[in-house]
Amino acid sequence: MERAGKISNSTVYRVIYGDTDQMGVVYYANYLKWFESGRSELLRQIGFPYSSIERQGFHFPVTEVSCRYAQPARYDDLVRIETTLTEVGRASLSFGYRISRSSDSTVLATGATRHACTDSMGKVTRIPALLARAIEHGGS
Amino acid sequence: MERAGKISNSTVYRVIYGDTDQMGVVYYANYLKWFESGRSELLRQIGFPYSSIERQGFHFPVTEVSCRYAQPARYDDLVRIETTLTEVGRASLSFGYRISRSSDSTVLATGATRHACTDSMGKVTRIPALLARAIEHGGS
Amino acid sequence: MERAGKISNSTVYRVIYGDTDQMGVVYYANYLKWFESGRSELLRQIGFPYSSIERQGFHFPVTEVSCRYAQPARYDDLVRIETTLTEVGRASLSFGYRISRSSDSTVLATGATRHACTDSMGKVTRIPALLARAIEHGGS
Amino acid sequence: MERAGKISNSTVYRVIYGDTDQMGVVYYANYLKWFESGRSELLRQIGFPYSSIERQGFHFPVTEVSCRYAQPARYDDLVRIETTLTEVGRASLSFGYRISRSSDSTVLATGATRHACTDSMGKVTRIPALLARAIEHGGS
Repeated sequence: MERAGKISNSTVYRVIYGDTDQMGVVYYANYLKWFESGRSELLRQIGFPYSSIERQGFHFPVTEVSCRYAQPARYDDLVRIETTLTEVGRASLSFGYRISRSSDSTVLATGATRHACTDSMGKVTRIPALLARAIEHGGS
Repeated sequence: MERAGKISNSTVYRVIYGDTDQMGVVYYANYLKWFESGRSELLRQIGFPYSSIERQGFHFPVTEVSCRYAQPARYDDLVRIETTLTEVGRASLSFGYRISRSSDSTVLATGATRHACTDSMGKVTRIPALLARAIEHGGS
Repeated sequence: MERAGKISNSTVYRVIYGDTDQMGVVYYANYLKWFESGRSELLRQIGFPYSSIERQGFHFPVTEVSCRYAQPARYDDLVRIETTLTEVGRASLSFGYRISRSSDSTVLATGATRHACTDSMGKVTRIPALLARAIEHGGS
Repeated sequence: MERAGKISNSTVYRVIYGDTDQMGVVYYANYLKWFESGRSELLRQIGFPYSSIERQGFHFPVTEVSCRYAQPARYDDLVRIETTLTEVGRASLSFGYRISRSSDSTVLATGATRHACTDSMGKVTRIPALLARAIEHGGS
């Protein structure tokens, strides 16, 4: 499925007070919520909103996450979340993320997640055939 | 069910960085998590952990919440969460909360929640008979 | 300042997985983050983004919040956050909120917050004169 | 500073509803809050609560985080957070974490964070001398 790296999405988010901590910057765990927004929008973009994937009985639980923090995101920043589908295995998916400040394109953080594909009983299973095909065709 | 007001619980929580915002105080939404901890511990104390209530097919979704903030909770504060069962209706429950700083007993916030009792389909239903009886007997 | 009730803002938010809880609905504390987004956008709309208010040494800490939950918001819902400036006192502000599901306009929750106006030392103070004037003129 | 790996802390946390998501398990970002609790308790244990480190003008912002999720934590689980100081550099600190279910010791997740040491202006600086010495002596 060599097309994986070609599928990407870009979305934005406005930082609220509730995202910050007393150092005056966004708390480190909150970047993982942005990762989730990013991959959710990517799946919607290729016609497979995660809500419909779940209705078909599939789940993509996160098995690994990593994040490197370069510059802090701050209150009221408009951050850009760029997500790329980096790898598609038989029963797994991986995404890469780049968070930047929209006003000046400064990269704030980069990260990655890896997901298993499971059925509704939590058993690892092949990713849905239609999704696999959509990915192979670059989301078109 | 006149014993409602007699049942109360006290538990503590250590404020983490992730609870604070850039004003250097705990973000206002996080007090509602403490309310949840408090009522959860109260139900456990009277022998009805919420997890077992759910396994029996009952849910207590919040229908109303209010909170007054008196003094800010700060990073590393040990806060005391005092919860009282204030009212038990046929198909509803209400709790009152007092959040104080453990070191000097300063009251930081007070609040209340009201809950419906629903079955697993979301239909409003009578509160479980055994729980009602336990409440009537003051949790003993 | 009779114009207060006339100033309102409408913004939208896409519910992520991280907003939900195991009942399959948005956790009750997260509505307070939406309230914050709403009042933040309202202040931006009338030319007083909260970040600039803070730079001028003013803060609007929440002193009271209430919320009534009518229908649950669910994963992937696009929710509409309607915020109205309901009252402006010498040293306080109040906002009202209505959260609805964008797809069918069902009201999910309504709420209110009250805020003190404080200086950077936390002392209650008059709301900034320019903001008061902007409010009086309906945000224009 | 070869003693780093010898310093460790164990603390527990009760999972609340607000930690879970609609898959019925703890949302992946929330493990990072537990990591924070763990390292915070470790620093307190060796006599350097992070609040006092900050008062002396030092900060330990996270520069990298990683987490592997083995088994899901669930509502009402009592989770054990085991934290080890794994590396101390001139101007950096690293911690390792193991999250397990207290009832049966099942490992739920493992992770790591790396932190810079900065002064109050955000400039990278040597870690405080007293802390470095305490670490060298195994926290005693």
